[in-house]
Amino acid sequence: MPALLKRLLFQVGPQPNERTFTLSSVSDEGHYISLRPFVKPSGSSESAFPFEWVFAGTNKSVKVSDLGNGVVTQDFNFWLDTNVYLNVPNTHRGEVNTTWKDWDSGCIEETGAVYPFGPEKESVSFRELWQPVDPSREDLVIVSPNGEKFTSNAKSIVLKVTDEAYDGLVIIVGRWVQGFLSKKDQGTTEGLNFVRLLERDSGKFESLLSFGKEVKKIPQSYENLKNGSTVTIEGLNWEVIEHHT
Amino acid sequence: MPALLKRLLFQVGPQPNERTFTLSSVSDEGHYISLRPFVKPSGSSESAFPFEWVFAGTNKSVKVSDLGNGVVTQDFNFWLDTNVYLNVPNTHRGEVNTTWKDWDSGCIEETGAVYPFGPEKESVSFRELWQPVDPSREDLVIVSPNGEKFTSNAKSIVLKVTDEAYDGLVIIVGRWVQGFLSKKDQGTTEGLNFVRLLERDSGKFESLLSFGKEVKKIPQSYENLKNGSTVTIEGLNWEVIEHHT
Repeated sequence: MPALLKRLLFQVGPQPNERTFTLSSVSDEGHYISLRPFVKPSGSSESAFPFEWVFAGTNKSVKVSDLGNGVVTQDFNFWLDTNVYLNVPNTHRGEVNTTWKDWDSGCIEETGAVYPFGPEKESVSFRELWQPVDPSREDLVIVSPNGEKFTSNAKSIVLKVTDEAYDGLVIIVGRWVQGFLSKKDQGTTEGLNFVRLLERDSGKFESLLSFGKEVKKIPQSYENLKNGSTVTIEGLNWEVIEHHT
Repeated sequence: MPALLKRLLFQVGPQPNERTFTLSSVSDEGHYISLRPFVKPSGSSESAFPFEWVFAGTNKSVKVSDLGNGVVTQDFNFWLDTNVYLNVPNTHRGEVNTTWKDWDSGCIEETGAVYPFGPEKESVSFRELWQPVDPSREDLVIVSPNGEKFTSNAKSIVLKVTDEAYDGLVIIVGRWVQGFLSKKDQGTTEGLNFVRLLERDSGKFESLLSFGKEVKKIPQSYENLKNGSTVTIEGLNWEVIEHHT
């Protein structure tokens, strides 16, 4: 089942906060992307690159284990990790081990630890809280607040760049689209492109977020796609690697 | 402006959680009620009284101060406090001082301290996180995730018991109704009654929560009300103390 999660809280140290409008999209087959734009970027660095973080991957880059009792572990080896791409100092490299715990409220608590100073050095624990919302709705509609089982039959479509010079992934779950395109070996914000779109009742996809010089190379309409087919956008080839409608 | 807040998180000590489906209703004129039912009551005590807590009051029982920069203090002297009513050991008595801080995400963090062992003894700090939702919607629709100003023109109606033997308040904000009725001097769960209702598209009010032997004495339809008028339900009189439509 595809999922759309809105982050409610991020905590390192004693004081939680949430400065971003983060949505994580998870496709039916487990491909994922998390776009974390600041709501109010502060200072010149955040204004130039108004994202706390973006990561994405296919289902091959995450190991999911259901431990029962509403607890799941997810071990990520991100395909795109903007901290790695931009070589941001004092940020984690390599696998990230996380634990996800269902709360009675329907929210999901994620905890884990990262090693920003290297794998042999001290770890930094973090906590995030996630609100599942209904991906088939135009609004951010909270699901399962009273313990009801939520099942989505929202569409789930995933496109992946096939050109050698780029990495890129677009995930459509229900009405919500998130995607990235990064130029290999660029290593600066100039090489990064992100989109977030919302399908309105009219069937039109409205852009909610658009970042990057090559953002027009990311597919932004999704008609007549089928599994295995390739679409070419501004000269760039994207393969449909998942297509459930 | 009336408000409907869904609680996302409750924290005392290092581990946050959310075991309830808590909604707090605040009327246009500042009357309030917070119903905190457990989603999955655990054990015989929670099954018999499946509420973490309920409190309510009129705008005379809370002092609100806007400190600017998205910070507001609220000092509560609850009218109904189920811990006080039931004389639950090791729970706070008297004014509760709280600080509310807007996060960029649109959520509101509430922090404060209570004195469960008496005003001279040690304090216990707490944190709650609140998600504003649109009271005029049938679903729990998240508002202002991206820093947009949210303005509700939802209706705001408040009824208050006038009979000497009871305390009681019903708050209707938009489609959402929450109310309590408590028998004075009873001091047991037998004297407590709570409702939560939701107005469907049809105009019918559907019961989402109904607790107590005398719950039928709480008004559960709200036609032909006007400010200052009195309605009699099963022999009990309720005055309309606020009426904005």
